[in-house]
Amino acid sequence: MPKVDLDKVPVKTGSIYPDPYAAEMAGRSSLRVGDAGGLTQFGANIIILAPGGKSSMRHWHLNEDEFVMVTQGEVNLIEDEGKTPMTVGDCAAFPAGNANGHCFENATDVEARFLVIGTRAQSEIGTYSDIDMKVTVEGGQFEFTRKDGTPIG
Amino acid sequence: MPKVDLDKVPVKTGSIYPDPYAAEMAGRSSLRVGDAGGLTQFGANIIILAPGGKSSMRHWHLNEDEFVMVTQGEVNLIEDEGKTPMTVGDCAAFPAGNANGHCFENATDVEARFLVIGTRAQSEIGTYSDIDMKVTVEGGQFEFTRKDGTPIG
Repeated sequence: MPKVDLDKVPVKTGSIYPDPYAAEMAGRSSLRVGDAGGLTQFGANIIILAPGGKSSMRHWHLNEDEFVMVTQGEVNLIEDEGKTPMTVGDCAAFPAGNANGHCFENATDVEARFLVIGTRAQSEIGTYSDIDMKVTVEGGQFEFTRKDGTPIG
Repeated sequence: MPKVDLDKVPVKTGSIYPDPYAAEMAGRSSLRVGDAGGLTQFGANIIILAPGGKSSMRHWHLNEDEFVMVTQGEVNLIEDEGKTPMTVGDCAAFPAGNANGHCFENATDVEARFLVIGTRAQSEIGTYSDIDMKVTVEGGQFEFTRKDGTPIG
């Protein structure tokens, strides 16, 4: 059945970030709707941001295109130039290799949600804009290090 | 600017289908929001269905994953088993190679919209479920033929 039963998609909480960054993701959860529907070529996730929550540490992707559409409430897109408010129906696109890092925050007092689509490249490097961290992804395995490749913490 | 200015995205009308199928797409238009934001790895299009409109001839993809989220109004998902109503926020996923063809129709009297994401494979074959047609895509060039490869019409 191609229609995804959203009531049966588990709400994923927690973060794969190393300390101390994992704690910053406390207001974020997600529904992996693409996985639930059997997709493998790109991720399609509904990100749920509680008031004060943020989607990720600010980052950019070397090899993977990313696309966002807000589906509930209001968020701020944060990038080098500052904050841009986005509301239901607004879209944003992040082509692979654009080094202007991005993340989203919910600065309102009600829940906000957005759909995010990201290609799944075999090899990927994500670089975090505001902290000394990068992530190297090979075949679905994530390794977080400092930008010079040394361990964190 | 990653936020897509939806007011500047051209409304695409018409169809690349050969006759007589192009005429069946009269109630369909689209906004190519991913292209507008510079994405290349997948298409991200908002499909606009006027009352009575349909999204495509019913079809399935050999190599490309596809994902849909309804963003306005109500549509019917049509596949082998019949019709499934979908409304705002509902999602559907169509993994590559699943031969249960799909399309969407707007059977209401108000406009409906959905976001559709589809991988852009270098080589693709789309097969139409209810008519003697297939499309072969190589490097972005579309060729419509009968299922045995002979010309249409």
